[in-house]
Amino acid sequence: MCELLGMSANVPTDICFSFTGLMQRGGRTGPHKDGWGITFYEGKGCRTFRDPQPSYNSPIAKLVQDYPIKSCAVISHIRQANRGAVALENTHPFTRELWGRNWTFAHNGQLTGYRSLKTPFFQPIGETDSEYAFCWILEQLKQRYPRKPANWPAVFKFIASCAEQLRKKGVFNMLLSDGHYVMAYCSTNLHWLTRRAPFGKATLLDEDVEIDFQQETTANDVVTLIATQPLTGNEQWQKIQAGEFALFHFGERVL
Amino acid sequence: MCELLGMSANVPTDICFSFTGLMQRGGRTGPHKDGWGITFYEGKGCRTFRDPQPSYNSPIAKLVQDYPIKSCAVISHIRQANRGAVALENTHPFTRELWGRNWTFAHNGQLTGYRSLKTPFFQPIGETDSEYAFCWILEQLKQRYPRKPANWPAVFKFIASCAEQLRKKGVFNMLLSDGHYVMAYCSTNLHWLTRRAPFGKATLLDEDVEIDFQQETTANDVVTLIATQPLTGNEQWQKIQAGEFALFHFGERVL
Repeated sequence: MCELLGMSANVPTDICFSFTGLMQRGGRTGPHKDGWGITFYEGKGCRTFRDPQPSYNSPIAKLVQDYPIKSCAVISHIRQANRGAVALENTHPFTRELWGRNWTFAHNGQLTGYRSLKTPFFQPIGETDSEYAFCWILEQLKQRYPRKPANWPAVFKFIASCAEQLRKKGVFNMLLSDGHYVMAYCSTNLHWLTRRAPFGKATLLDEDVEIDFQQETTANDVVTLIATQPLTGNEQWQKIQAGEFALFHFGERVL
Repeated sequence: MCELLGMSANVPTDICFSFTGLMQRGGRTGPHKDGWGITFYEGKGCRTFRDPQPSYNSPIAKLVQDYPIKSCAVISHIRQANRGAVALENTHPFTRELWGRNWTFAHNGQLTGYRSLKTPFFQPIGETDSEYAFCWILEQLKQRYPRKPANWPAVFKFIASCAEQLRKKGVFNMLLSDGHYVMAYCSTNLHWLTRRAPFGKATLLDEDVEIDFQQETTANDVVTLIATQPLTGNEQWQKIQAGEFALFHFGERVL
């Protein structure tokens, strides 16, 4: 399997602290040694750092940990390969354009019968069930909304109905973002946590690192993290129930 | 304007030496301080490092210079903004999927009347004339070849005919790759150089760096570089004539 990490914030925030925790699971405290990736949104643009190498000793992962890139929407993934070889084209997150926006997707789980999913418009480049599923979801969106929609909560409810169909094919935990919204759909394991004033201290479970958010934030900051498993030991993470989803908009849960 | 750098090689080769030269022009020896980017193909996958910051002092550019990523097809760009703000979504190269392949594009020049280009299928995310032009080329390809074509030289000749139409709208120097082929279309300035055995030494024009390729290569390596302006002072770069293009396949010029 794999692990997911997402962030939604109301001010550009760096994710170095949480990313440092996740990266340890990429071959050191966890078995997810088959690649890692992270996508940061900045305005309409986004940038992705990816590597099919284990994250815990990747020079690129080191850069991302040391060089704070501030963003309001982040999606990250560490991979333990099941479908598809260990290769760059099979490394999450995946990003495609729809309605003039960058859509970014990462998946944890395993699907069967996914090759029967029809994706004439958005064709997979790699061999993973995950990219097939992403292309199929975009396909459904393009058919349902040929033009850019206006009612975004309705769009994400529709995406959840697509995810529900994919869950019937296996395990389908997913993070999806268009840069404004960050959506988490849970099939087995996804947890989330919102940090806001008064900020306290947090301690990573996977690395002997503590951070005092009071030093790092302002009173108005609202930052939500989503992860397969809680990353900190002294905070109250909430589990998303199987078959349910959570939608975040600039830090706040809206659905 | 901007500067372009491309590479096509028959064995995975790092571009650190040439990239080091180009990066100096990103705010130090050149005025191209409005961002930079580089895309490396690895198998069917590709990864892009981009930054709207000047390249000559970018920590990410430093990583790319120090960490040799070996690839058979590379496209790089440093930007001096004309159309579109200095922002990540306006930073080249741009990558989109077509026929299940990653297509990567970078442009040097300036177009007028580009907003009249119809791109219903591939929608621009940023505001640059360059991304509009790229989306329009992909649009033409999708219409001309609804299914994945087999005769690739014919495809690139068709792309050249599209580029010819774009050149009528202004200055249009372009690098384009699908990971197998690297195409250079010249409107005003593009030079290329093929290195093969017997390899000699090369000296960067923009930085006091010399490299002895004999130490870095095997007798069978064939590596072609394409750049807006020659990057080395002691090698014979060939200029592509205005309105002409060059197509490279794993290091060798094929058209």
